[in-house]
Amino acid sequence: MKRLRVLMTREEIVPERLAGATVVVLDVFMATTTLLTILENGARGVYPAESLEEAEEIREKLGPDDVLRGGEQDAARIDGYDHGPFPEEYAPAIVAGKDVVFVTTNGTRAIADAAGADRVILGCLRNAPAVARELEESGADSIYLVCAGSAGRFTVEDFLGAATIASHLDLKDWRLNDAAWLALDFMERHGENIPEALKGGRAGRWFVEHDRMDAFRFVADVGASELVPEVKAGQLVSTSAGQQGSWSASQHVSQSGKNTTNRNDESGGRRPERTV
Amino acid sequence: MKRLRVLMTREEIVPERLAGATVVVLDVFMATTTLLTILENGARGVYPAESLEEAEEIREKLGPDDVLRGGEQDAARIDGYDHGPFPEEYAPAIVAGKDVVFVTTNGTRAIADAAGADRVILGCLRNAPAVARELEESGADSIYLVCAGSAGRFTVEDFLGAATIASHLDLKDWRLNDAAWLALDFMERHGENIPEALKGGRAGRWFVEHDRMDAFRFVADVGASELVPEVKAGQLVSTSAGQQGSWSASQHVSQSGKNTTNRNDESGGRRPERTV
Repeated sequence: MKRLRVLMTREEIVPERLAGATVVVLDVFMATTTLLTILENGARGVYPAESLEEAEEIREKLGPDDVLRGGEQDAARIDGYDHGPFPEEYAPAIVAGKDVVFVTTNGTRAIADAAGADRVILGCLRNAPAVARELEESGADSIYLVCAGSAGRFTVEDFLGAATIASHLDLKDWRLNDAAWLALDFMERHGENIPEALKGGRAGRWFVEHDRMDAFRFVADVGASELVPEVKAGQLVSTSAGQQGSWSASQHVSQSGKNTTNRNDESGGRRPERTV
Repeated sequence: MKRLRVLMTREEIVPERLAGATVVVLDVFMATTTLLTILENGARGVYPAESLEEAEEIREKLGPDDVLRGGEQDAARIDGYDHGPFPEEYAPAIVAGKDVVFVTTNGTRAIADAAGADRVILGCLRNAPAVARELEESGADSIYLVCAGSAGRFTVEDFLGAATIASHLDLKDWRLNDAAWLALDFMERHGENIPEALKGGRAGRWFVEHDRMDAFRFVADVGASELVPEVKAGQLVSTSAGQQGSWSASQHVSQSGKNTTNRNDESGGRRPERTV
C-alpha cells in the first residue's frame, strides 16, 4: 500500500527508514522558498549546506570566483556572508552566473537530515501544486512531507505547505499517518484562504506586523512557480512537473492562472549535476 | 504575558525551559487515561515509571506486599507483570488497597521528561474540562500541553486531548505557540464531535476496527472524570478542580451532565505524599 507521511518537525525523521522514499522538505519561512527563488532566478549552482562548516567546505571546493554565500543562523545574518535568508535578496541580476551556498538554522539542516531518501525535493507554498504533480507522475509510493519546524517545534507555515501539497494528491487507497490526516482535515477548512491560515502562525504574523507584506504575499503565492528543485549530489537541480523532469519551456501557466516567466530558459533543460 | 504552548510530541520538550511552568502530559491511548482510572478506582498509590528499571526500583522500595505492576513496552504486555495498559484491567476490586507501578513506552516517559516543571498534571479526554478548570483556578501563567506522541511522531488523539483542554480555557490575551493555535482551530471544526475526530487517528481506528468499542467510548468520554492527577514525588496525587486542590466530595456532576461516583471518597482529601 502506498504511504504518505507528514512529519511535524525534522526531528521526527528516522534516517534509516527513508530508504526507498521520496522526501519533500518544507521550510516555508524561508529556506525552501528562498532556495526555489535562487534557482529560478538563474543561479549557476545552488548548494544548501547543513552547517557553517559545510558551507565553508563547499565554497573552498567551488573556488573563489562568482560564489555568493547566504542564509541565517538563529534568524540573524551571518558575519561575512553576502546575503540573508529572504528571497528578494536574490534577484536575477544578483545571482545570474553565480554559485550560491546557502545555510540556515532549520531548513538546510532538514535537507541534510533527509539525505538517506531516494529523492529529496524542496517544497513551499509557491511550488506546492507542481511538487504534487511531480510526486504523482514519478509514481512514488512512499512519500514523506517533512516540515522543517523551528528550533524543534511545530510551525503552522510548514504544515500549511505540506497540507497544500497533500491536498493536490489523489490519495485514494493511500495509507496516511496521523499528521497527514490532520493536514487534509486542515485544508478542508483553510484551502480556500491560504494567506489567512498563514497568519495563524507566529512567523506569518511577524511579516504582517512588521509591514513586510510584499514578502508575505510572495511566500503565500500558491502555484506561482512550476519549478521543483531536487537535491542531487549536494546541489539543487531543476525538475518541472509534467515535462519528464526537464525544465525547458520558457513560460508556464501556473495552476492559479498566472503567467510565470522562466528566467532560466537559457539553461536548456535539466542542469548538469555537479559534485562538490 | 501568559503563555500556552502545545507540544506535538514529548521530544519537543526542552527540559531546562520548564522551570516555573505547569505541564499537562497527554497520552490518550492509553497511559494517562489508564493512570487516571487507576487512581480514580481507589488504588492506594500509583507510581508512573520512566523505564522497566525504574519500575523495578520503585517496587523494591515499596516492598513485596500488595503491589501490582502494569503497562506495556512497544505495545506488548510485559513479561511477569500483572496487567497491561488498558483501563478496564484496573477495576476497583483489582486495585483497591494496592500500590500500582505503571510503565509505558510513551506516556510514562513523557511524564518523566516533564519532571523539571513546577507542576506535572495528567490529562486525557475524560478529565479535560476538569484539567482546564484546575489550570484556570491555579492562576498558572506558563502552561505546556504535552502530547506524548508515539515513537516520536504526532498522534491525533493526544492532540485532540490537548485541543479539548485548550478549548475550555479563557485565552484572551494569552500568547499561543503555533501548535496551540492549530489546536483551537481544530476544535472549532471538531469540538462538537470528539469521537469522530478520534477516529481520524490510527490508534482510534484500531479500536473501532478491532471491535473494542467499549474501550474507545471510555477513552472518548469527555468530562466523565473530575479527577486531576498530579505527580508529586513520583506518585500521583488527586486534585479536583474547584475544590482548592482537594478531592473529597463523594459525587460530582461532570460537564457532560453525567453523575460520576468518586470511589476514593474514603481517602478524605488530598492523598498524603510519599516518596519512593
